[in-house]
Amino acid sequence: MQRPTAFLRSALAPGALLMAMLPTVAWGQADPLPSWNNGAAKRTILAAVKEATTPGSPGFIPAPERIATFDNDGTLWVEQPIYTQLAFALDRVKALAPRHPEWKTEEPFASLLKGDPSAALAGGEHAILEIVMATHAGMTTAQFEQVVRDWLATARHPKFNRPYTDMVYAPMVELLAYLRANGFKTYIVSGGGVEFMRPWTEQVYGIPPEQVIGSRIKTSYQMTRDGPVLMREAALDFIDDKAGKPVGINAIIGRRPMVAAGNSDGDRQMVEWVPEGQTRLRMLVHHDDAAREYAYGAESHIGTFSDSLMSEAKAKGWTVISMKNDWNRVFAFE
Amino acid sequence: MQRPTAFLRSALAPGALLMAMLPTVAWGQADPLPSWNNGAAKRTILAAVKEATTPGSPGFIPAPERIATFDNDGTLWVEQPIYTQLAFALDRVKALAPRHPEWKTEEPFASLLKGDPSAALAGGEHAILEIVMATHAGMTTAQFEQVVRDWLATARHPKFNRPYTDMVYAPMVELLAYLRANGFKTYIVSGGGVEFMRPWTEQVYGIPPEQVIGSRIKTSYQMTRDGPVLMREAALDFIDDKAGKPVGINAIIGRRPMVAAGNSDGDRQMVEWVPEGQTRLRMLVHHDDAAREYAYGAESHIGTFSDSLMSEAKAKGWTVISMKNDWNRVFAFE
Repeated sequence: MQRPTAFLRSALAPGALLMAMLPTVAWGQADPLPSWNNGAAKRTILAAVKEATTPGSPGFIPAPERIATFDNDGTLWVEQPIYTQLAFALDRVKALAPRHPEWKTEEPFASLLKGDPSAALAGGEHAILEIVMATHAGMTTAQFEQVVRDWLATARHPKFNRPYTDMVYAPMVELLAYLRANGFKTYIVSGGGVEFMRPWTEQVYGIPPEQVIGSRIKTSYQMTRDGPVLMREAALDFIDDKAGKPVGINAIIGRRPMVAAGNSDGDRQMVEWVPEGQTRLRMLVHHDDAAREYAYGAESHIGTFSDSLMSEAKAKGWTVISMKNDWNRVFAFE
Repeated sequence: MQRPTAFLRSALAPGALLMAMLPTVAWGQADPLPSWNNGAAKRTILAAVKEATTPGSPGFIPAPERIATFDNDGTLWVEQPIYTQLAFALDRVKALAPRHPEWKTEEPFASLLKGDPSAALAGGEHAILEIVMATHAGMTTAQFEQVVRDWLATARHPKFNRPYTDMVYAPMVELLAYLRANGFKTYIVSGGGVEFMRPWTEQVYGIPPEQVIGSRIKTSYQMTRDGPVLMREAALDFIDDKAGKPVGINAIIGRRPMVAAGNSDGDRQMVEWVPEGQTRLRMLVHHDDAAREYAYGAESHIGTFSDSLMSEAKAKGWTVISMKNDWNRVFAFE
């Protein structure tokens, strides 16, 4: 299995720009969060991290317990106009169509291949599941990793015409590096597929494969003439969303996070799962910046940020990050 | 949730002796593996680690890929005369019996309470599963952690009359520390329950909760008046044994191990999952020391080391560790 670093060195050179910036941003300058405006969100983050890392302070957190969990879609990178993984799946349907003549008449594939994704997705979760299984299963884990790499090397975001790995939020990449520089272990806890994220999270976010938690399909161990493989089966194993997020965090990390960041109703339980304490950071990114990215929230099907979540955030003093007001830049390429 | 370190400082003082030794063993002396005799196993380990950590050598392994996975029962600590977790479950049945009058007549509980565990376990896997669910479910994860701590503080191994956390193999604790000193990330990958191990692995082995992979029962997220909890449900979620070990390693770590150690047929697939390469370490502990521990193998129901596993190990050049010949001491308390 080729390692992500080797892969990304060759395939994701544009994304590497972000990482090249990090040493300067996080350790060389006085301001560890230069892409953040000097507002309440930034002040809260700086104060909480200082308190958590100052021995003897009431909110001091011993280093091994400094666990920070971040949602991915809409929190670390763009999730509009559709989840990146869904864009990947739709492209894969087109690529695989010659091998599946039956898709010409079977939904949701037929509508997709006719160029009508809305009709295809009208089948709701069942249609999405069929598309995911048809495109994510029936191969080994190593083969899937290669397919993801190959797609990322050429796919472009429809609005920004950039590689998807450029569509990450510079302020959040700074925040991840700042937390790590202060002894926090940073994790991704995403509803997205774990094996769709692992090939690139180390290079793009500085988060290694073993710190990525996501949804999973089942795999089965098989011994072949070329050695053992794990086959990806067309069956869900775990959905890492909503109440699944604390379940996944407990199953895999076995500690509660001291810092959690999300952007939607799917992250509510993860943020609630941060234990009580004055230095805990509970953050929600609010997409209110149509000019630089997108503006959406309660009415959106993707990344729903309901009124009830906003009410809970306000009532409990969680940090709502306004993309428009709290960030002086959104993307590194700006 | 009280942290394992805090707990173990007070409850497991004897176990702490082991850890207190480690700095001397691993970093202060010329020999990082003093409990190992100078035989083929020790030479293989030292040579492989040197090769893996020497830049430019053909077998050099970049630091992020230095993943080492260790089985627990029979590999890091004693698993005879019964798995420690089963001893825990049997004790819990007795402790919970007053709340379950129906157990007086229902098997496998009735036989257990009459002092006849053999009759209780005659029901095979189904009986064991019933005992596990009755003793491991129906409480929160935090409550279960406390139950495990309380039991470990008083339970004693029937043969050695020592706390179970003293029943760990000193040579393997040295090996874990030696690997970590050389940049390896050490994981436990055990068929045992992950939440039975996490409260004590950090103190006893230097392995933090997030590097413990094990079998799991399902948990469900619930919001109570006192905040959120995870309830342990009476249903299996994942069995981390045999082919489940590479599946679990992939799901949680997302990298293949470069070092793996086990002691039974349950570890065969994990050891096979180490990729080909001259510096890879594939190890199996062979229990051939009735004088200092136990002697068992192909005929044992617990920790079966079948003839076919021994044949595979010999054919593929895996390192079979003879407890009798390769270790000059087994336990730190000797």
